[in-house]
Amino acid sequence: MAPAAKRAKTAKDTPYDLLYWPGIPGRGEHIRLVLEEAGASYTDTASTGDVNSVLTQISQKNTGDASNTPHFAPPILKHGNLIISQLPNILQYLGQRHGLAPRLDGEDASDGAYVINQLALTILDGLSNEAHDTHHPIAVGLTYEDQQRESLRRAEDYRKNRLPKYLGYFERVLAGEASGDGPWLHGGQLTYADIVLFQCLDGVKHAFPKALKKLEDSGDYSKVFKLYEAVKERPKIKEYLESDRRQSYSLGIYRYYGELDEQ
Amino acid sequence: MAPAAKRAKTAKDTPYDLLYWPGIPGRGEHIRLVLEEAGASYTDTASTGDVNSVLTQISQKNTGDASNTPHFAPPILKHGNLIISQLPNILQYLGQRHGLAPRLDGEDASDGAYVINQLALTILDGLSNEAHDTHHPIAVGLTYEDQQRESLRRAEDYRKNRLPKYLGYFERVLAGEASGDGPWLHGGQLTYADIVLFQCLDGVKHAFPKALKKLEDSGDYSKVFKLYEAVKERPKIKEYLESDRRQSYSLGIYRYYGELDEQ
Repeated sequence: MAPAAKRAKTAKDTPYDLLYWPGIPGRGEHIRLVLEEAGASYTDTASTGDVNSVLTQISQKNTGDASNTPHFAPPILKHGNLIISQLPNILQYLGQRHGLAPRLDGEDASDGAYVINQLALTILDGLSNEAHDTHHPIAVGLTYEDQQRESLRRAEDYRKNRLPKYLGYFERVLAGEASGDGPWLHGGQLTYADIVLFQCLDGVKHAFPKALKKLEDSGDYSKVFKLYEAVKERPKIKEYLESDRRQSYSLGIYRYYGELDEQ
Repeated sequence: MAPAAKRAKTAKDTPYDLLYWPGIPGRGEHIRLVLEEAGASYTDTASTGDVNSVLTQISQKNTGDASNTPHFAPPILKHGNLIISQLPNILQYLGQRHGLAPRLDGEDASDGAYVINQLALTILDGLSNEAHDTHHPIAVGLTYEDQQRESLRRAEDYRKNRLPKYLGYFERVLAGEASGDGPWLHGGQLTYADIVLFQCLDGVKHAFPKALKKLEDSGDYSKVFKLYEAVKERPKIKEYLESDRRQSYSLGIYRYYGELDEQ
């Protein structure tokens, strides 16, 4: 098959550009954390406030260029000539480039990258997409207030059924032989899936503080919460979290509405 | 990084095992279509009715093995020693092995695989996950009847806003320079993203026949519907669709509830 988007030889020396909505950590935050852990250079529309560069990419007038498609939604990552979207996809790209996943190519190639991709997809399904839908179960184009009754129902199911099911699954992954030594999900080494789990847990802690406290206090998910602390203590991530580049949660994926939390 | 799941040298000669719920095409159907297009050998729990092999993988007692994690949900693909889940992940694995995506490794490696992964993720978000949520907007553990009022609201938004937005996006991808010659989404060649778009469109046609007819008749998405026909006419896929291996839609992701369709 013809290479549709040939990687430029110099791409490794080019900083990344993260295009995402300013004002919320949102889905862009996973990318920031991976870039910070990797010590990579990047620009960020959250800092520049350049919302137009996001809007241009997702505009109905954009049909892409010779090698890139148009984009449906941010986060979008520019790197040299490459412009890609879809969070799990961007994470996979960065994981390969910065040693945050097993290699897909070269002498030490393995299928481990598919395990990390699988874990990241499941974490994002359960602790990002489903968390978002607790305050927007009907339509993304409506306000929370316009779907509050449905949100109360969905959030109750999320707290009682979905959250324990997902945390139980991640605890099982961490208890498994394939997780290896140390606090990490797979292969005894930090991967981007660990960073994704940290950020998602941090978000659901913000959105459902009482529910998460209860789950943490149960002791049933002690490996999950240990991983959370281990990622938080990574020196570069710690420095980032204490910097003013780390934005506060507001009206993004993770929102605090007291009535949706455990009463 | 240590290869956590080393690919066996003989893996290419081993048939695949697809583990998925019998009785519905569901998320497993994308995998079947890719395997059929590739002419690959595979076993399928839909044929054997072996639901226990699915339940064992997602059991709360399963913690995986030395290289594989446990699994949250099917579809699950076994191939030699490798056991992976998450539909977009399985598709990427198969795409690499059967020339249905640009290569991630070797001499002709490019970033094109990230474009195909991005497209597949967006198609599945819009035309599979969101389509599912029209009949289950509150809780997967409840019946449709227990959330019918919320379903009516969500389905209306889906038909009026989300479906046209997604189809418009895919039309733009197909109109773009990077789509290349012919009916395909990217690079002028059939990839697994085209197969995913076919199957998703087929499903939403089943679930929302009147809404889809209206969108098709508008002429605004002619490239999208041409792609649908082009995939359907691929010789191996055509043969599969006419075989008894192709299951009917029932109570899976794509369900026909007349009240949720255009009136």
